[in-house]
Amino acid sequence: MREVLNAELEALNEHLAAMAGLAAVAMRQATQALTTGDLPLAERVIAADAELDAARDTCEEHAQRLLALQSPVAGDLRTVMATLICAVKIERMGDLAAHLADLVRRRHPEPVVPDALVETVDTLGELTVTMADRLHDLITGEAARGFTEMDDADDSVDALCARLMSMITSEDYEHGVAAAANLALLARFYERFADQAVSVARRLEFVTTGTLP
Amino acid sequence: MREVLNAELEALNEHLAAMAGLAAVAMRQATQALTTGDLPLAERVIAADAELDAARDTCEEHAQRLLALQSPVAGDLRTVMATLICAVKIERMGDLAAHLADLVRRRHPEPVVPDALVETVDTLGELTVTMADRLHDLITGEAARGFTEMDDADDSVDALCARLMSMITSEDYEHGVAAAANLALLARFYERFADQAVSVARRLEFVTTGTLP
Repeated sequence: MREVLNAELEALNEHLAAMAGLAAVAMRQATQALTTGDLPLAERVIAADAELDAARDTCEEHAQRLLALQSPVAGDLRTVMATLICAVKIERMGDLAAHLADLVRRRHPEPVVPDALVETVDTLGELTVTMADRLHDLITGEAARGFTEMDDADDSVDALCARLMSMITSEDYEHGVAAAANLALLARFYERFADQAVSVARRLEFVTTGTLP
Repeated sequence: MREVLNAELEALNEHLAAMAGLAAVAMRQATQALTTGDLPLAERVIAADAELDAARDTCEEHAQRLLALQSPVAGDLRTVMATLICAVKIERMGDLAAHLADLVRRRHPEPVVPDALVETVDTLGELTVTMADRLHDLITGEAARGFTEMDDADDSVDALCARLMSMITSEDYEHGVAAAANLALLARFYERFADQAVSVARRLEFVTTGTLP
């Protein structure tokens, strides 16, 4: 019975790790679409989001089956519940990457990101993709407790987004109102993606150590 | 045993309904703060969000205890899992109301909403508060299956937000770039609040009927 439960828990965990991997890919491609104005790539990111939605459903069904058939308790129960909530949050990360790609689609053929801001958005992309990759490794156990690094990356994302917002609202901003509205949303989506990653990392740490960072 | 389980399920459900009630209050007050520029009210909404966060934690602990001690199966297990996920989503609705209030705080003493748009934002507030109230009644069972109404209200919110976005980005928009950036975020927050409400209603419907609307 214990062996079956362990195998089930491991399969559930692998499933969650695969979801984090998909979120990382979506964010990498969404950033590339934003900074290069690549419409076909943006459309692929939007279409691929259905895969992550389906993965969340599968994860949920798996967790439900596991709870019904194995009645896990204590730490195992905490793990299943954490996985369930993390799956919802990682699916949300995929949504946010798709929202970024959707900005490209809506603004096309205008670019969402003015040339002067491409570097900033590239950095936001790197930071958030690294966070999603790190999440994958935390889930699989390839990385040991990595909450602090995650939190630091989140601070960097927040600082960059705040700078972006103050650039948009400064006197010498020159890219027009429509671009400003889209850049405000862009900043928001990156910020939320990073927040969700931190929130997932917090739960993983809680499951592993029993204390919330 | 069955009686204990039923009582526990009912308590969990009441807890979730109370959370929907808190989200409705937060949204009502956030909208009022936005349309009247009431900074103290905005600050109260932001501070009150901690209550909804704590309610989510309590709900989760309750669900976990219930799973560990009662090992519910089939429909009961589905109910507990749905409650768990709905609690995360309703807490998120509270966050979004707090984000709206935070726009007031950041822009103060400038208003977030130009006079010409107060009516639109008032309508967004009414629609979304009604959705949260409806959610409360769906959870308690005071309203019978109400997914369609919820979905219609969501369509109205989406249409209003789209109109707001096209006003911001139109030629004759005259309230400046900073206001535009904030209004884009405002539209986004209302839209997401409504989306979460629909998502919760979908899950409630699924638990009640066994099919996803």
